[in-house]
Amino acid sequence: MSANQSLIQAHIRRLAIVGVGLIGGSLARALREAGVVEWIIGVGRQADNLMAAQRLGVIDEWTQDITKAVAGADMVVLATPVGAMAAVLQSMLPALSKTTIITDAGSVKGEVVNMARSILGSGSSMFVPAHPIAGTENTGVEASFAALYRQRYVILTPQPDTSEAAIATVEGMWAATGAHLLRMNIVEHDKILAATSHLPHVLAYALVDYMAGLEEADTCFELAAGGFFDFTRIASSHPVMWRDICLQNRRAILLRLDQYMSQLQQLRTYIDAQDGSAIEAIFVHAKKVRDTHLAAYHDSSTCDE
Amino acid sequence: MSANQSLIQAHIRRLAIVGVGLIGGSLARALREAGVVEWIIGVGRQADNLMAAQRLGVIDEWTQDITKAVAGADMVVLATPVGAMAAVLQSMLPALSKTTIITDAGSVKGEVVNMARSILGSGSSMFVPAHPIAGTENTGVEASFAALYRQRYVILTPQPDTSEAAIATVEGMWAATGAHLLRMNIVEHDKILAATSHLPHVLAYALVDYMAGLEEADTCFELAAGGFFDFTRIASSHPVMWRDICLQNRRAILLRLDQYMSQLQQLRTYIDAQDGSAIEAIFVHAKKVRDTHLAAYHDSSTCDE
Repeated sequence: MSANQSLIQAHIRRLAIVGVGLIGGSLARALREAGVVEWIIGVGRQADNLMAAQRLGVIDEWTQDITKAVAGADMVVLATPVGAMAAVLQSMLPALSKTTIITDAGSVKGEVVNMARSILGSGSSMFVPAHPIAGTENTGVEASFAALYRQRYVILTPQPDTSEAAIATVEGMWAATGAHLLRMNIVEHDKILAATSHLPHVLAYALVDYMAGLEEADTCFELAAGGFFDFTRIASSHPVMWRDICLQNRRAILLRLDQYMSQLQQLRTYIDAQDGSAIEAIFVHAKKVRDTHLAAYHDSSTCDE
Repeated sequence: MSANQSLIQAHIRRLAIVGVGLIGGSLARALREAGVVEWIIGVGRQADNLMAAQRLGVIDEWTQDITKAVAGADMVVLATPVGAMAAVLQSMLPALSKTTIITDAGSVKGEVVNMARSILGSGSSMFVPAHPIAGTENTGVEASFAALYRQRYVILTPQPDTSEAAIATVEGMWAATGAHLLRMNIVEHDKILAATSHLPHVLAYALVDYMAGLEEADTCFELAAGGFFDFTRIASSHPVMWRDICLQNRRAILLRLDQYMSQLQQLRTYIDAQDGSAIEAIFVHAKKVRDTHLAAYHDSSTCDE
């Protein structure tokens, strides 16, 4: 991964955001606050959410006709679940200008890039794959806030034929939100995010589902404390978004899940064998590593994900 | 489980707390704040921690001689890791009066009760096994605070021969901290806590340890966001305390771990088979269950665990 320090100042005349939820809405708010965008048009499937977005001043205008949204836009941001992006791209094709930059905010990059290439053809040089490493478990435009990306990483995974000018504009846009920019290789991105983000989500969803299935489920949840609720916070995330991530980053997630389960199996062996020093060594090491990295995370971050 | 509503007002003349850390220190602070204790003597292995406890006004006096601490005490609270309790009980025997009530704050009850019975013999009727369901990942007396137990559950697992008067006094003590009291069967307690608390701790420690072992560990931790740090918050907990819990509640933890891993294996199968609707069903269900119980948890709780 490499950081890009020489960012151009963003100026976006007309921005179309597809999916004005937590991610798209927070981007809109941050760009507005930075004064780098003139007009934002929102598009999405839920009219009530779009109306709320306009009422909250997050967007200037909304439509459910995607061709209307992208016509004349200098930038289109795909902020839908990754599984919806192919249909969205396909339906905007008729209205898409060759100078319009398209970018996304998906947590998976490999499948998204393949999909964009197959739909946009040579026009895919104007597609800049991006992933802001930020979010909360809350959904919808009401949950969006301008500071979401401040001091957080946004990873770009451009291809050899991606337009350098388009990359620079997307970087400028994200820089205006207060984010730090990085460029990464697609495979590396998808493997790392599978470990740091996708795997924990799978584990948390599975734990809540497991507990809910127990005979003693009611007592379990009644007696669960803050530790449990923090551990499973991410299991309150957008189910469709995470279903899509599991499908689109399937191989990397399966790899991480298998690696993790074999680590867990090892720890299980130590517990079964009553090997106190082996158990303690793992716990001491984990605590030390986490405490160290958490301190660094807090030092560089001002807002909660 | 059953709630006990008819609590007597606690009054403790001389309280000995063995282990003046987060748990013991918070109990001392809460009892002092409630004005139900006259004198608190702290005992433990780390003199600097005991000095800090006295300086902070958490305890009145400290000693490293456990017989001195328990002599003349009407209540002794064991707030050490569960693995240390046998040695602690053994060493206080010579100074223990027949009227002194002993209670503990351990997260495992089966092994603790067996241990108390074998060391105290017929005197074990004065041992009231208890478990406050509260804590944070922070350790030491500096991390203690009076509100830790407010609106949280304290579970008692008394035996048929446990003195009813001793039980009532221990319940009165915990009620004075603002906690809700419950009585539970030992086996039920250990199985439920294995699911709601011990399993998540094992999973979190294992995840941090797994990530730390990856070739890309540095990049992983650099790019980890709030979701990851919340998920692994409990991996910053006291390693020796959790080692002891794993050893002492081994069977229930192994049961929960095996059940959870087979649930995870099921979810893995769905991801591998690209079965979007099966994945989505699990995620939707988990989110719904968690959101429901979290709302109830917040309604009934004023302080963070």
